[in-house]
Amino acid sequence: MMAVAQLELPQFSDIVEASQRLKGRAVRTPLVRSDALDEITGGRIFLKPECLQRTGSFKFRGAWNFISRLNAKDNSGGVVAYSSGNHAQGVAAAARMMGIPAVIVMPEDAPAIKKRNTIALGAEIVTYDRFGENREVIGNAIASERGAQLVPPYEHRWIIAGQGTAGLELVEDLKEHGETLDAMLVCTGGGGLTAGVALAVQATAPDVSIYACEPEGFDDYGRSLAAGERVSNEPGAMSICDAIVTPTPGELTFSVNQPRLAGGLAVSEEEVRAAVRFAFETLKLVVEPGGAVALAALLAGKIDCRDKTVAATLSGGNADAEMMLEILGAA
Amino acid sequence: MMAVAQLELPQFSDIVEASQRLKGRAVRTPLVRSDALDEITGGRIFLKPECLQRTGSFKFRGAWNFISRLNAKDNSGGVVAYSSGNHAQGVAAAARMMGIPAVIVMPEDAPAIKKRNTIALGAEIVTYDRFGENREVIGNAIASERGAQLVPPYEHRWIIAGQGTAGLELVEDLKEHGETLDAMLVCTGGGGLTAGVALAVQATAPDVSIYACEPEGFDDYGRSLAAGERVSNEPGAMSICDAIVTPTPGELTFSVNQPRLAGGLAVSEEEVRAAVRFAFETLKLVVEPGGAVALAALLAGKIDCRDKTVAATLSGGNADAEMMLEILGAA
Repeated sequence: MMAVAQLELPQFSDIVEASQRLKGRAVRTPLVRSDALDEITGGRIFLKPECLQRTGSFKFRGAWNFISRLNAKDNSGGVVAYSSGNHAQGVAAAARMMGIPAVIVMPEDAPAIKKRNTIALGAEIVTYDRFGENREVIGNAIASERGAQLVPPYEHRWIIAGQGTAGLELVEDLKEHGETLDAMLVCTGGGGLTAGVALAVQATAPDVSIYACEPEGFDDYGRSLAAGERVSNEPGAMSICDAIVTPTPGELTFSVNQPRLAGGLAVSEEEVRAAVRFAFETLKLVVEPGGAVALAALLAGKIDCRDKTVAATLSGGNADAEMMLEILGAA
Repeated sequence: MMAVAQLELPQFSDIVEASQRLKGRAVRTPLVRSDALDEITGGRIFLKPECLQRTGSFKFRGAWNFISRLNAKDNSGGVVAYSSGNHAQGVAAAARMMGIPAVIVMPEDAPAIKKRNTIALGAEIVTYDRFGENREVIGNAIASERGAQLVPPYEHRWIIAGQGTAGLELVEDLKEHGETLDAMLVCTGGGGLTAGVALAVQATAPDVSIYACEPEGFDDYGRSLAAGERVSNEPGAMSICDAIVTPTPGELTFSVNQPRLAGGLAVSEEEVRAAVRFAFETLKLVVEPGGAVALAALLAGKIDCRDKTVAATLSGGNADAEMMLEILGAA
């Protein structure tokens, strides 16, 4: 197994190829604007709502690009993935569309909606203790036992290229508006979406300033960019942003992101909550906390947007209703 | 005043013209699909989420088409409109973009978010008692006092043509998917959106079955279609669907809709609530009750969708957070 070579650098042409592969499979999410957001920030803000993507997050893009490229020998034992929930659903949906089985290793405390949706998509779930067990070890063990192909959450050229299609669509749609991007804010966990979007966006707007947006306490990407090397978060921190609480930048994603990013922006839990409420009340979009960190950075004024064209990802919308009600009710 | 002729029948060419006028002003809302919805209904369902439209509902389309066509003589006294809230916001936004004042006549019990947003868009609000006063009389009085141009909510060729651009976009996007529409469900109040969408959709798919979707107790359009003449609702009924509780079909809209519609579909309050929850949890969209009646009809199986291509409007998303929390919390 692991016939698919890892750690090869993705190229812009990989993203163009992935976008062909995703045509008619993924949702071509629109660009959303908001007069209120433009007024608050002073800029021209364009949002890419991947909460409207198949399975409720951008993760389907990379999963489909990876799984649909496996040949019959490589996919004969199905696929396995470890994920807090969004990659799980992306992999489960893509595997079902390919007619192959999927096993997903998920933390015991993953949001119920993510577990429920993953099962509904036909995948088998294996849970683990996020604080005591190593998900990669468990995933690799299942892969060798069953002869299943591991679908990495971000450390792979095909995954990064798939996520990058969101950036490619964004750039194409901005061109129709006659806009050139000054800054791009991306919700960042392991850095796969960020790397793909950075590759796609810089190909047409080389001067764009790209920022990795993270919750405080999980700002490993921002601190790694500042340090010039991959650093880790202090263990044991908690965050409502379950989708992006990775411990350290990916090796591959960091090598793509380091030369391309302007830096990191960290937002507080209260800023994330305000962004989730803003999305609900003003944008009419259901955005999960981890998918709202880039919007939170905009609303909190972490960068100066005045008279600039700025885009941000709304990366996912798979939050438990109870948590959303708690956030929305606390206005 | 009232220099603009009323009750002229809209033509398909008016919609094409309106779509040019709306370019870069209105959001070209995407088509949203959902694997879950396809499984529940057995069909290929395409949703047009006008909750993502500027001002949170389709109403901006008609308002901009109307107001941007007024000449300097007709708009010198500004505009006036009566509305439960969505038309109010559409008119306020369009007037502000044209740099002219707007007065909106709104019911005292309109959702707070709709009043707040209308004021935030720079309009002046005059409230009235929905059960004791006539909004048209009040609106006309203000129009003559101030020399303001009345922007009718649905009884006008330009308004219907503007709303019809939603249908035109839908048809264009479906063509890209290689789909021809078998049925079209529209959330129906006064019938302006329904008339515009019917005109747009039947121009390319003459065999499509179009249904007016309404809440029980306010199914005047469905009963009028069945009776072959305009009939009214019993007065005094209540509904959570504040956006579409009109008493009787418009004269102009009925003359467009009567020869084109297959009939009406009425949904219960519980069916509407389930649709609002489905939009939130599965589609990641915030849809107000009045904008969810067509989705409610689909989810409740009011028509047989098996193996058919069916589209529905999600007409607006301007619900008070408190009401949404009450609906979502009751799952």
